[in-house]
Amino acid sequence: MRGFRLNAQLEADSRLVSILGLCQLRLMNDSRWPWLLLVPQRAEAEEIYHLTPLDQTLLTFEAGETARALKRVTDCSKINIGALGNKVRQLHVHVIARNPGDVGWPGPVWGVGKAQPYDTNSATSLIEAIVQEL
Amino acid sequence: MRGFRLNAQLEADSRLVSILGLCQLRLMNDSRWPWLLLVPQRAEAEEIYHLTPLDQTLLTFEAGETARALKRVTDCSKINIGALGNKVRQLHVHVIARNPGDVGWPGPVWGVGKAQPYDTNSATSLIEAIVQEL
Repeated sequence: MRGFRLNAQLEADSRLVSILGLCQLRLMNDSRWPWLLLVPQRAEAEEIYHLTPLDQTLLTFEAGETARALKRVTDCSKINIGALGNKVRQLHVHVIARNPGDVGWPGPVWGVGKAQPYDTNSATSLIEAIVQEL
Repeated sequence: MRGFRLNAQLEADSRLVSILGLCQLRLMNDSRWPWLLLVPQRAEAEEIYHLTPLDQTLLTFEAGETARALKRVTDCSKINIGALGNKVRQLHVHVIARNPGDVGWPGPVWGVGKAQPYDTNSATSLIEAIVQEL
């Protein structure tokens, strides 16, 4: 993790769920959707292809495990995965549980309205459920 | 490719660029952004984790090569990658070149306004440039 430091905006917007092999797994503090972040602990990476091939494979594996866990916990209709980074350049991958009728459906979640923070208990319960499924 | 058939909506919205090992690489017919699609030629897959581990690794590799080629051709500021599938369930991965000031920046491209089709020559030139960089 030499030189890696979590971006301040990502840190402010989310809570740590678990440290995986490559990534920090974090929960976005927005109760409108169950929304996880994977942040590869690699300094300087902004695009997925900046990672080594091994790290890219690890990221794919961790994103898959995260998506599966989120699906099991939420029984959602669809997983949305995205790496945008137009605002925060540090490489991060969104993994979001979506359902017909949720805010913004069937559009994306990014840029929609304002975050609705969790109360502490709800966030903790969701984090515990996700950790259990990983 | 047993049983794979390209979704009719994806086919109508895009033009074939190349067949890679796993995916059809296609150009979305929307000149507002250089916007590529990777469609794994696997029947029934809706989530990335539905693919076998080998296919997931191939998809990661092909998405990386596609992103790098698109970056070289467009010299864009940021690549956006996403697998949403809220409307079209057949698994497909978007690879989009983004720049400050483009339509919708810094938000996502999905759901923004109406597609502006290419004239045939522009699409063909872009496809040729991408194929050359792959």
